[in-house]
Amino acid sequence: MQITHALRQSAQLTPDRVLTICGDRRRTAVQIVDRVARLAGALRSLGAGSGDRIGILSLNSDRYHEFLLAVPWADGVVNPVNVRWSAAEIAYSLTDCQTRILLVDDTFAPLVPRLRELTPELESVIYTGDGPAPEDTLDYETLIAGADPVPDAGRGGDDLFGIFYTGGTTGDPKGVMLSHRACLTSAMGSLVTTDLLARGGVLLHAAPMFHLADLAAWNIACLTGATHVMIPSFTVSGVIDAVQTHRVANALLVPTMIQLLVDAPEAADADLTSLTNIMYGASPISEALLARTMELLPNARLTQAYGMTELAPVATLLSNADHAVPELRRSCGRPAVHSDLRIVGADEQEVARNEVGEIVVRGDHVMTGYWNKPAETAAALRDGWMHTGDVGYMNDQGYVFVVDRIKDMIITGGENVYSVEVENVLAKHPAVAQAAVIGLPDDQWGERVHAVVVLAPGATVTPDEIQDFCRGHVANYKLPRSIAFVEALPVSGAGKILKRSLRDMTW
Amino acid sequence: MQITHALRQSAQLTPDRVLTICGDRRRTAVQIVDRVARLAGALRSLGAGSGDRIGILSLNSDRYHEFLLAVPWADGVVNPVNVRWSAAEIAYSLTDCQTRILLVDDTFAPLVPRLRELTPELESVIYTGDGPAPEDTLDYETLIAGADPVPDAGRGGDDLFGIFYTGGTTGDPKGVMLSHRACLTSAMGSLVTTDLLARGGVLLHAAPMFHLADLAAWNIACLTGATHVMIPSFTVSGVIDAVQTHRVANALLVPTMIQLLVDAPEAADADLTSLTNIMYGASPISEALLARTMELLPNARLTQAYGMTELAPVATLLSNADHAVPELRRSCGRPAVHSDLRIVGADEQEVARNEVGEIVVRGDHVMTGYWNKPAETAAALRDGWMHTGDVGYMNDQGYVFVVDRIKDMIITGGENVYSVEVENVLAKHPAVAQAAVIGLPDDQWGERVHAVVVLAPGATVTPDEIQDFCRGHVANYKLPRSIAFVEALPVSGAGKILKRSLRDMTW
Repeated sequence: MQITHALRQSAQLTPDRVLTICGDRRRTAVQIVDRVARLAGALRSLGAGSGDRIGILSLNSDRYHEFLLAVPWADGVVNPVNVRWSAAEIAYSLTDCQTRILLVDDTFAPLVPRLRELTPELESVIYTGDGPAPEDTLDYETLIAGADPVPDAGRGGDDLFGIFYTGGTTGDPKGVMLSHRACLTSAMGSLVTTDLLARGGVLLHAAPMFHLADLAAWNIACLTGATHVMIPSFTVSGVIDAVQTHRVANALLVPTMIQLLVDAPEAADADLTSLTNIMYGASPISEALLARTMELLPNARLTQAYGMTELAPVATLLSNADHAVPELRRSCGRPAVHSDLRIVGADEQEVARNEVGEIVVRGDHVMTGYWNKPAETAAALRDGWMHTGDVGYMNDQGYVFVVDRIKDMIITGGENVYSVEVENVLAKHPAVAQAAVIGLPDDQWGERVHAVVVLAPGATVTPDEIQDFCRGHVANYKLPRSIAFVEALPVSGAGKILKRSLRDMTW
Repeated sequence: MQITHALRQSAQLTPDRVLTICGDRRRTAVQIVDRVARLAGALRSLGAGSGDRIGILSLNSDRYHEFLLAVPWADGVVNPVNVRWSAAEIAYSLTDCQTRILLVDDTFAPLVPRLRELTPELESVIYTGDGPAPEDTLDYETLIAGADPVPDAGRGGDDLFGIFYTGGTTGDPKGVMLSHRACLTSAMGSLVTTDLLARGGVLLHAAPMFHLADLAAWNIACLTGATHVMIPSFTVSGVIDAVQTHRVANALLVPTMIQLLVDAPEAADADLTSLTNIMYGASPISEALLARTMELLPNARLTQAYGMTELAPVATLLSNADHAVPELRRSCGRPAVHSDLRIVGADEQEVARNEVGEIVVRGDHVMTGYWNKPAETAAALRDGWMHTGDVGYMNDQGYVFVVDRIKDMIITGGENVYSVEVENVLAKHPAVAQAAVIGLPDDQWGERVHAVVVLAPGATVTPDEIQDFCRGHVANYKLPRSIAFVEALPVSGAGKILKRSLRDMTW
């Protein structure tokens, strides 16, 4: 199992098929093989050795695609950098895994001088933009034109494919090590489980390519020999334009993106009938959004994926058919065929169905470990089981319902409060647009329930009114004891609310 | 990747689904988990240790299914015995891999005394029939009832799943060692490549379960949580009855079986509309048979698989859509996503498209090697590439056309003659029902072309007439120099003509 195999096979079976479309650029399978083999040659010339990490800090592009293939082709390990991170966070991750070669696009080229200051290990910076290469950077196309192609190094199986930094929501960033086998097991297993992507159909990259959710879709699409269309980042007009121009069949989105798309006035007039498969993750889809999506995109089959970077990334899938069952829409689906999943108690023993415990997962898709973090690795991977840190339960038919993050669970006066439950109640109040619930230290109760609320446009409400409203829905010990109103909640690159930041802000 | 994982997952997701139907017996997922865990316990009690080989000599049944799962569950290695072999051949294979525990059904129980004579290592024989257990055998159901369930040993990945004896067509039987990963890679990759089986649909086992073709379908169906229906062996009425009674969706057949089915008068009156997917292998399907099949089974999508036991077993797939293209029907399709396939010359270098060479294959589905045969393993597996011994070419779109077996290629006066080409010409003669072409030693030419012919019912023809007929179709050096008429051709368990036997008979 080699990530590069799908490209070589596309060149064998469909040599002249256009595999990447980015703006005006279109490249066929044989062209990409040639460019990847040359880029790999250039990386070797720059001193990249076997297993060396090579980074990329870039919005989506066809060159991102080439990077993901050229690095393993050159026997290297990819380090796709989170584009939403600060220079300090980026520098931390580059230094942590000793990335000495970094690709940057036009958006991030201005950050290079600062990164060089913070990261003395950084040797070569390759500029992937179309303008003149900035000082101290090498031009991507010049490198490819000047390099001799090298044969595929044959990296695969348990060899590392990449290091993916995570930890936006809890603690220090950790470098998740994923092998070729882990990524391909998740991709193949997902496609075996359900038709989450139309085989061979055009895939749109609107979600950020550095994130494993989009990389998972990328991998599946590569396996089926599909064409990839890249837009730099998500915009409603960008998605609509790409879908119409290229008859996009498959897209990976997060619910927020779907919401923006279906709410946009221009979407109603657009021809989006080619969209047959939408894969989404990060959170369940609301009733209202589902109904609106089915109305605007009648041809689209929806699949929800639940997982995490450490699972490369898919653990469970909620199929399109499952979406028709109201009580299943709150679940994240059932374990994919490659994914051995259990709900366990504090004693590591499986709990009964419908009982809450920690979600743990085993299989070939589980990470190798955290880079340079043996203690964190040992804590997360016990006896082969990845401890997700998510609290949930499984019903009698194997559907998994995520209740909360373990770290977001509040223990007040000895009682467990799942923040999600309280958030769901708050969300029902007409004046509340968004709400997050966290635990704050409390001398008397250990922790107390604290709510952070974003008001709906033009709405006003007092903390007392909100408490009164909640009192009708949840037990007394779950009531928010304090409420703060904010303009917006801090969110991660994947659209998840950053409760750690909320706690930091509040303490 | 563990073969037993799919069963455990079925018990988790669909605990009460009936997974096996055999005659009047129906068993649900949780029942089978319990039986498999007990049978594994019984095997351990009989002395089966980690990695020990456990054999089965049986027609198809639900107990075959339980055997395939209980052996890895007990940390053992399956040895499914070819039911068409003689006692001497069976004894050879049991002795070769030291199988000390053997399961036999009613059909093969009478062979046990002879096998015990020939195989002194044989310790325990388990009788899987429903009558009283013969002398010196243990009763299967009694063992299960009396054993304590054991936990799954967790065998998987590169651990051996089974040893599959092959070599019917050339040389001594060889024990092909296949890992869990090899079998599951072929199964998952095949399903990712094309919809060869309807996910979750009832699978009929009419082809022999000892053969890797049926085992491949078994594995895929297990991954999708499907119900398995077993009939002891292929009969037209058995297939029709099973399809109608159980609404069978999926079947693996060889073209001979398809031919018998569509030619049967009772098939025209039967309701076979539930059959949506037929997977076939061993040989391409003729135009006439394809047309007749599409007429009788309008809902059936056809997929041809090409491979071999050493590839666990799938290398290429000809999709249902490909069948619509006349020139592709002679091909065996394109490499499956898991299968790195090349056509190479004697120098091991890839030849140009449309040029003939040996088909070689690489990937996680390739065998570990031949049991106890390092020289044969080294000859077959060179630099990770399995040398199939098949001669063929690949067209510009990656379709593979098998021309001949290397060993069946005849070299006469320095010219290569592909036996298949001559056989195809012979088959066009109205008096010829079946023909096989082999090379016989010849003092003058090295080898000479020899044809063995089965006449059509009631037909008569002289060797001279056949030669005259061929002269109009092939070059002079390809003409059969001698022709023998026989009642029937010797065929292997998989329906392949045994050219080795033909040569042995003729020399």
